[in-house]
Amino acid sequence: MKKYLENVREKSPLVHNITNYVTVNDVANVILAIGASPIMSDDEEDAPDITAICGGLNINIGTLNKRTIPGMFLAGKRANELGHVVLLDPVGAGASKLRTETANKLIREVRFDVVRGNISEIKTLYYGSGSTKGVDADVADKVTDDSLEAAVRFVKELAAKLDTIIAVTGAIDLVADKDKCYVIRNGRPEMGSITGTGCQLSGLMTAFLVANPDDKLGAAAAAVCTMGAAGEIAWERMQPGDGNSTYRNRIIDAIYNMDGETLEKYANYSIV
Amino acid sequence: MKKYLENVREKSPLVHNITNYVTVNDVANVILAIGASPIMSDDEEDAPDITAICGGLNINIGTLNKRTIPGMFLAGKRANELGHVVLLDPVGAGASKLRTETANKLIREVRFDVVRGNISEIKTLYYGSGSTKGVDADVADKVTDDSLEAAVRFVKELAAKLDTIIAVTGAIDLVADKDKCYVIRNGRPEMGSITGTGCQLSGLMTAFLVANPDDKLGAAAAAVCTMGAAGEIAWERMQPGDGNSTYRNRIIDAIYNMDGETLEKYANYSIV
Amino acid sequence: MKKYLENVREKSPLVHNITNYVTVNDVANVILAIGASPIMSDDEEDAPDITAICGGLNINIGTLNKRTIPGMFLAGKRANELGHVVLLDPVGAGASKLRTETANKLIREVRFDVVRGNISEIKTLYYGSGSTKGVDADVADKVTDDSLEAAVRFVKELAAKLDTIIAVTGAIDLVADKDKCYVIRNGRPEMGSITGTGCQLSGLMTAFLVANPDDKLGAAAAAVCTMGAAGEIAWERMQPGDGNSTYRNRIIDAIYNMDGETLEKYANYSIV
Repeated sequence: MKKYLENVREKSPLVHNITNYVTVNDVANVILAIGASPIMSDDEEDAPDITAICGGLNINIGTLNKRTIPGMFLAGKRANELGHVVLLDPVGAGASKLRTETANKLIREVRFDVVRGNISEIKTLYYGSGSTKGVDADVADKVTDDSLEAAVRFVKELAAKLDTIIAVTGAIDLVADKDKCYVIRNGRPEMGSITGTGCQLSGLMTAFLVANPDDKLGAAAAAVCTMGAAGEIAWERMQPGDGNSTYRNRIIDAIYNMDGETLEKYANYSIV
Repeated sequence: MKKYLENVREKSPLVHNITNYVTVNDVANVILAIGASPIMSDDEEDAPDITAICGGLNINIGTLNKRTIPGMFLAGKRANELGHVVLLDPVGAGASKLRTETANKLIREVRFDVVRGNISEIKTLYYGSGSTKGVDADVADKVTDDSLEAAVRFVKELAAKLDTIIAVTGAIDLVADKDKCYVIRNGRPEMGSITGTGCQLSGLMTAFLVANPDDKLGAAAAAVCTMGAAGEIAWERMQPGDGNSTYRNRIIDAIYNMDGETLEKYANYSIV
Repeated sequence: MKKYLENVREKSPLVHNITNYVTVNDVANVILAIGASPIMSDDEEDAPDITAICGGLNINIGTLNKRTIPGMFLAGKRANELGHVVLLDPVGAGASKLRTETANKLIREVRFDVVRGNISEIKTLYYGSGSTKGVDADVADKVTDDSLEAAVRFVKELAAKLDTIIAVTGAIDLVADKDKCYVIRNGRPEMGSITGTGCQLSGLMTAFLVANPDDKLGAAAAAVCTMGAAGEIAWERMQPGDGNSTYRNRIIDAIYNMDGETLEKYANYSIV
């Protein structure tokens, strides 16, 4: 995992984010923490210009609203034309018609290198892609040791269908293309008490993808390990009386201080 | 106050927030800190769907703009139809025509369980409700021991007129329906040096209301005590050189660690 | 520098901010930290009312979008009519057509007391102002000891042309009108690893300008020294394992605790 991280620090990619206003500040600070640079821009007149000067684009549909949707499509298509990395974080797909339909339309009209979400969001995309319900989509709502085999089959199948890398994050994280799946066991459950650790990971992952164009699957997995390792390291630093707000700061701090050796030491994954 | 808090932790309600972009991240983290879950959504096409899957709705008019106003009305009415808790935080009512008129229109068209603001915002609603100026509205601009009796009469009268619970926060906090008023003396003046402690309280209070449907007045008061107690506990943890940014983090941390016994110990209130 | 800071703490000015949603929370907390009060409002129907009750207006074009542009012009013109301080932070001018054109149009239609940005943004405004390329605009992309003399000439020339104070921040900071330039050597390079230290400075500077109407050049320079000194003090407090997120908090904390003597001690500047 070392080389993926070192490439980010060395190349310092510029990442364009069209993201929600809840977690946007943390996304920016995480991207800076890993040694990359964030730019945020969402207007349809602004986003295509901004994406052109960046190396990658992170589209996140949290707090989705009709003002910013056109910018997502225009910037996504522009990034595609330029051969830039594009990532989709389908926050809340399945929770509302607007989010579900927008996520599915984005997937049809923009080519994504990675789609990263929780299992529920990812399953929504599976059905939204027009398939009838297949056996492998009967995957449980949580990826656990018991449901792991079915979950791996499901993400590989969806990766094949959408021709993209799928990253499902939860207690066990899966990062897969159609052939190969990283099964990652990093992070801590307390990360769920912080708003936006998923959004932060999507921003971080986009930086890893831009800096490692020759192995995007490995880069995406390395980003997941980095975020999880930071969650573990930050937890070790927690003092009595600390809570989710301090934990948030310490996770970003841990990413700031992460080097290749530390990541190598903490990364806990297998490939199936 | 113990049981109200424990109900939040046990039921982990989902709270829909239509709120300003200044303090939204802290609102989300406070709701997570108390053991509930936040969702933010403001678009008129998205907000009614999102509110339907939640237990309560927190409408906050900070950074009010015409893009999000329709979503406030649609989500508010939808939440009313579904019997969900709805809270209004009329940030800046009285400071601009748009905010004053929107707050008053929301109160006319949406049924609120609680309206929570500072005394100036709450007085604006009193006049906006169409009443001519009465004696009890001559309440001072600060609730102090000297003005307490008049302030209590005023909030009870407004609670009766608007048929809702009124929560006025300041040096002394008042939470009242038409018959009964909690007079709460928790918190610290330094909380005013942090942006959005009021917004955070509104999010927190919505979680308390959803988890305690049989005693909303007590639940609202318990939320005020929780926020104030967290402000006191966090202050005890301040180190030399710390300031308002660290204080913000420590208040959220203190909410994360708050249990029924601690709340009981710190809660400082009387009922009049 | 002492008196400028003490005037802010004594007068506690109200600062209206039309700013981006990435760093807005930090801007609010920095303004509170220095003892002033922030209000955020961006809607064309709301912003002119809000600016009327404030002492100064800070316009920042980060995450620029067409929804908030009309409010920038209306509030800017209203603030001009009322004789309020107005500051422009042209975030990303030069990076997109929308940002460049909007920044230049703002400068034509609103009278700014200060324009504060990095050298690249400021150079964009120079060319956008319609001048053909002159010798002094051949200033390097970084202000260093080698390029200092040319940079000082450039900012004075631009200050004369735009009839405003120009504040260029970077490794060496320059704050100039047509005749006089503060050359400031405060701060740390690690401040670049935090999102929005520039935005924070713009908010802070607006508070200094409002509180020191008789010497705006000195007030702007004092704000730069305050931010830089806070960056130095905060860095001294960093512990092993701390990173950019904790550094962010500690800088705001240092501003909260800054007094005139401390600022005097840390301020490192000359006037040329």
